[in-house]
Amino acid sequence: MANIISGKELAEEIKAELKLKIDELKRKGKTPGLATILVGKSPASIIYVRNKGLACESLGIYSEQYNLDENITQEDLVSLIHKLNQEDKIDGILVQLPLPKHLDEMNILASISPDKDVDGFHFYSVGRFFCEKDYNNMKKNKLFLPATPYGIMEMLIRKNIKLEGANAVVLGRSNIVGKPIAMLLLSANATVTICHSKTQDLANICKNGDILIAAIGKPKFVKQDMVKEGVVVIDVGINRVDDKIVGDVDFDEVSKKASLITPVPGGVGPMTITMLMVNTVVSAERHLNEG
Amino acid sequence: MANIISGKELAEEIKAELKLKIDELKRKGKTPGLATILVGKSPASIIYVRNKGLACESLGIYSEQYNLDENITQEDLVSLIHKLNQEDKIDGILVQLPLPKHLDEMNILASISPDKDVDGFHFYSVGRFFCEKDYNNMKKNKLFLPATPYGIMEMLIRKNIKLEGANAVVLGRSNIVGKPIAMLLLSANATVTICHSKTQDLANICKNGDILIAAIGKPKFVKQDMVKEGVVVIDVGINRVDDKIVGDVDFDEVSKKASLITPVPGGVGPMTITMLMVNTVVSAERHLNEG
Repeated sequence: MANIISGKELAEEIKAELKLKIDELKRKGKTPGLATILVGKSPASIIYVRNKGLACESLGIYSEQYNLDENITQEDLVSLIHKLNQEDKIDGILVQLPLPKHLDEMNILASISPDKDVDGFHFYSVGRFFCEKDYNNMKKNKLFLPATPYGIMEMLIRKNIKLEGANAVVLGRSNIVGKPIAMLLLSANATVTICHSKTQDLANICKNGDILIAAIGKPKFVKQDMVKEGVVVIDVGINRVDDKIVGDVDFDEVSKKASLITPVPGGVGPMTITMLMVNTVVSAERHLNEG
Repeated sequence: MANIISGKELAEEIKAELKLKIDELKRKGKTPGLATILVGKSPASIIYVRNKGLACESLGIYSEQYNLDENITQEDLVSLIHKLNQEDKIDGILVQLPLPKHLDEMNILASISPDKDVDGFHFYSVGRFFCEKDYNNMKKNKLFLPATPYGIMEMLIRKNIKLEGANAVVLGRSNIVGKPIAMLLLSANATVTICHSKTQDLANICKNGDILIAAIGKPKFVKQDMVKEGVVVIDVGINRVDDKIVGDVDFDEVSKKASLITPVPGGVGPMTITMLMVNTVVSAERHLNEG
């Protein structure tokens, strides 16, 4: 039976470290600040934004929440973002996705100042981290890494998983998980294979993975016969089945062969919000240093 | 014995298509224009820049070449770029790399207006293409793709290589070849594995590749026993050995097993400059459409 990686515990560990940094920033007269923007009334988005607000509160990060009408115009939304770009007390701006169809998501994200793009979805942020070769330098250079893949990396590193030379198999190629986690694993010297719906002979490729990242949004897709004995499994899936939340991995089966595995819920989920907090604090540190 | 992919022939084919587009642009009153900036007197860089100028000339693209002293300051170089950003007759700006050590390459590339970044090295360009999911959309949306990987994609597609579901193995993870070609192959639905100096059991991974891209800068590194029968091999290496140019692939050996293979020289090389010309023309088309 595998050991379970508790995202909840690791998130608490990171938050405790973060609290020290926030206290130090405050002593220097700087309180980190995050603005979250919610457009419309999607129940899931309301919960996500609320949880981000609560995370700020528990850490002593200043936060502002903008709840905008779902019919807001592109111009009005962009002009709010431009205003927040200018405000000294705001270090991070987060627009909760997805946005209503009439809004141009790409242009709205592009209107966030790259130095406040704590979600790391701006093309500039994406290009910046893509071009950085070494994971340690990404952190040293205070890049905004996208929260979910960043959280996965911190899980692996804090659990002392050897990444250098490991075969990492990534299932999924989304812009927010699959592709960026592939690039981050590569920057930590793993050999990386990216699989997706068109991949042939998927089971055999998965079986070659020392590390398996599942991010395809298919409930219990990864079965026991698809993984290597002793594999480390990170399950990014959040699928609702019969009013229960399950991952992309068949936990009961796969946990028998894995050496380490994340549960759903309680695995990657709690890390994601925490890494957003990390990015906000990093941004505040940068803003303080740059005066 | 493998068939040889002649980059020279394919480049001529693309240039002939490009010539028609340039003629049409000129009929509409727009001549595409490229500015190249060379700092210092590196013999290799002088040749590269000259070849780019000659390619422009042969196609009827307007070009300006700036030969700057190797001691030029960051400020003077950036101010030249800012001037070129404003000039209507310039659609593309190319700074020949590498730059002398005292110049901050990252900041200089960032000073090029993203809409004239025909090399595709600006963080914005990189992030933009990273986030586009489908190779056809990259072209439809007139993105600036980095010239070498773009040239490789066009070779594969024009040779009717099935990319969807193919196992593509990329040797190398540079910002200008390895990582971007991995992303482009993925956007064409290949399953992609990225290998590098820390990869374990490289030969076995290579042997699983239906397509093998070698971009590691080690002369004749890829041997016959590392490839699958019938593999398609793209050799990006340009290594000088005993006054001869050889690739990263042992051509004599590997060509016996490959179904298709690029020679060095005459393979990827001629495609690279051609794709820069494609980007310049695409930029001119975009500038014409946007008035």
